[in-house]
Amino acid sequence: MGGDVGPEVVIGGAELARERYPELRFRLYGQEPLIRAALAAAPRIAAEAEIVHVEGVVLGTDKPGQAIRRAKSTSMGLAIEAVKAGEAQAAVSAGNTGALMAMAKLALRTMQGIDRPALVALMPTLKSDSVVLDLGANTECDAENLVQFAVMGAAFARTVLGLDKPKVAFLNIGEEDMKGTEAIRDAAALIRTAAVDLPLEFLGNVEGNGIAQGNTDVIVTDGFSGNIALKTAEGTAKLVTGLLANAYRASLLTKIGYLFSRPALRALRDQLDPNNHNGAVFLGLNGVVVKSHGAANIKGFANAIGVAHDLVTQDINSRIQLDLKNFAAHRPAPPSPEPAVGAA
Amino acid sequence: MGGDVGPEVVIGGAELARERYPELRFRLYGQEPLIRAALAAAPRIAAEAEIVHVEGVVLGTDKPGQAIRRAKSTSMGLAIEAVKAGEAQAAVSAGNTGALMAMAKLALRTMQGIDRPALVALMPTLKSDSVVLDLGANTECDAENLVQFAVMGAAFARTVLGLDKPKVAFLNIGEEDMKGTEAIRDAAALIRTAAVDLPLEFLGNVEGNGIAQGNTDVIVTDGFSGNIALKTAEGTAKLVTGLLANAYRASLLTKIGYLFSRPALRALRDQLDPNNHNGAVFLGLNGVVVKSHGAANIKGFANAIGVAHDLVTQDINSRIQLDLKNFAAHRPAPPSPEPAVGAA
Repeated sequence: MGGDVGPEVVIGGAELARERYPELRFRLYGQEPLIRAALAAAPRIAAEAEIVHVEGVVLGTDKPGQAIRRAKSTSMGLAIEAVKAGEAQAAVSAGNTGALMAMAKLALRTMQGIDRPALVALMPTLKSDSVVLDLGANTECDAENLVQFAVMGAAFARTVLGLDKPKVAFLNIGEEDMKGTEAIRDAAALIRTAAVDLPLEFLGNVEGNGIAQGNTDVIVTDGFSGNIALKTAEGTAKLVTGLLANAYRASLLTKIGYLFSRPALRALRDQLDPNNHNGAVFLGLNGVVVKSHGAANIKGFANAIGVAHDLVTQDINSRIQLDLKNFAAHRPAPPSPEPAVGAA
Repeated sequence: MGGDVGPEVVIGGAELARERYPELRFRLYGQEPLIRAALAAAPRIAAEAEIVHVEGVVLGTDKPGQAIRRAKSTSMGLAIEAVKAGEAQAAVSAGNTGALMAMAKLALRTMQGIDRPALVALMPTLKSDSVVLDLGANTECDAENLVQFAVMGAAFARTVLGLDKPKVAFLNIGEEDMKGTEAIRDAAALIRTAAVDLPLEFLGNVEGNGIAQGNTDVIVTDGFSGNIALKTAEGTAKLVTGLLANAYRASLLTKIGYLFSRPALRALRDQLDPNNHNGAVFLGLNGVVVKSHGAANIKGFANAIGVAHDLVTQDINSRIQLDLKNFAAHRPAPPSPEPAVGAA
C-alpha cells in the first residue's frame, strides 16, 4: 500500500526493478482497486503480477502490538506470511517500521545462532556507501549481540556492496581499545580471537566522524547509538544544505552564484538523496524483509527491491550461517566448572 | 601552551577577549620564553598579564592517569590549581581533554548534589546554537545523572545563550514517552514531577535529526550517545561540504558557479566553523574549567574565554545549586518501608 506515498510508488518501483532484473516476479498485497489503478502505468509488470486483495492496512501510527494482532488481515502481514510459506523469496514494504519488524520477527523467527535481529542500512560517505547496524531494533546490546551484528553486517557488505573482505569496526567514543562500554570491549576481544578465518577485516573502533570518512565498510553498534548516528547525520546534512540555500539567497551576487551552481548542487543533492541509499533490512530472520523509506520515490523503491534481489540471489542467510559456524569453531571453550570435590 | 597550535593562539585569543571584556585579567602558565615571544604581538595584555613559568606540558598523547601524576609540574595542572586556590576564577585550556577533565575533577571535586560532572558544548542548528551534554565524560549514565545533566544544561543555556526558560529534551530514538532506555524514561518522569518550578521547559524526547532543527535549546544524553552525535554531525558536515567541493570541480560551468558562489560558501563556512561555537565546559565542579578545541584559532580561543567569562560573571554554579535545591524540594519522598508488624 506504499507507506506515506501510496501504491503508485511501490508499483512504479517494481516496474523499474523488473527492467533491471528481468527474473523478478511480483505479488502485490493490498486494496485491489488502488493496485489496478496504479498498474495502468506499469505495463511490464501489469501482465504478470499477481494481486492479492487485502482490505486491512497497517497505519504509520499503529503500535507494533496492535499491528501484530491484525497481522493476517493486513497487506503487510500477508506479504510476510508469503515469505514464511515459501511462496515469495522476499517481502518489501514502505510501511510502519516498528510493525514490520514485529510482524517479521513473529512470523519468520530469528535464525539459528542469532539472538536478536538487527536493522541494517547504507549510509553515504566520502568514498562508497558504508553499512551501519543496528539502527534501532535493539536499544541495549551485549557483547554477543554486537559480535553477531558484525558477522551479519559483513555478510551484508559482501552481498550488497560486492566487497570480498569488508572492513568492520565498532562505533565508539575513541579509537583506543579501552574506550567505550564493556560490551564493546568484550565483543572486540571475541572478534580478535574467533573471527580469524572470516571474510572480514576487523579495524577496532571508529568514532562518529569516521562514518562519513568511508574508511570502514561496516560500522557496528547498538540500536540506540546507531539510530542517533543515522538521524544526526540526516539532520546535519539538511542543516548544511539549508544554510547553503540561505547563503545563496543573501544578495544579488550570491543569487547569480546559485544560478551558475545548479549543476553542482544537483550533483550534491543526488549523492545525499536517501533514495540512492534506500532499502533497510531486518537481518537475522529466516527470510528476507526489506524496509523502503516511507517517503521514498519510484527510484528509491526500486533500489529497495534491488537490495532484496541481491540478498536472495546471493543467499545472504546461508552466508551468515556459514560465518557463524566458522566463528563458533574458533571460539575458546567456556572455562570448565570447578571439578566437584567430594567431602572426605 | 596552546594544544595543537601553540601559545600564540592562546595569547592572541586572550588579547581579543580582553578587547571584548575589559575587566578580564590573565595569568599565563607555561614555558616563559615561548609566552614572552607570543606576547610581543599582544600589547594590550602584555603589560598586565602575569606569567607563571612551568616547564612541564601535558601532551595530547598522555593518558589521564599519567597526566594526573604530574599535575603539579604542568601548565595545565597549575592553571587548575589556581582556580582551586581562588587565585583565578576560571581555567581555559586547549590541551588534552581527558587529562583536563581528570585533573579538574581531582583538584576541584564534584559540586554538591551532582554525582558526575558532564562535558557540555554548543552545536550549530538551523536556528540558534543548542546546548548538548554529556559529550563524552560518562559512558553510561543512570536516571539521576541524566536529571542532573538537564539541570546543569538548562543553567548553561540561560548563562551562555541568554535564554530565560530554555527548552530541554532527552536525545532518544523516538519522540514517544516509552522509547529508549529505562534511565531516560525514569529521568523524564522525575523531571515531569520535580522540575515544575525550574526555569526550563521540558519537551520530552528529541531524535538525532532534531538536534540540527534547533527547536530544542538543551539536548541531554549519556556521554556515549552525545559523543557519537557530536562527532557524527562534524563528520557529516565535512562530508556535505566535501561533496559540494567535488561537485564544483566537475566541469567548467560548475567552476564558474564556484567563483560566483564564493560569498555564499564563505557564509556557510562561517556558520559551521567550530571556532564560532568554541568552548566546551566540564560542568558540575567547584570551579569553572573551559576546554578550547585543540585546533581552534585566535577567534575560537577568544570565544572559549568568553564562555568562561559568562559562566563566572553570572555565577553558573550558584544557579545550579539553587536549581538542584528547588528540584529536591519538589521531589516525592522515597516510598517508606513496609511498617514492621509484630507477630501476634
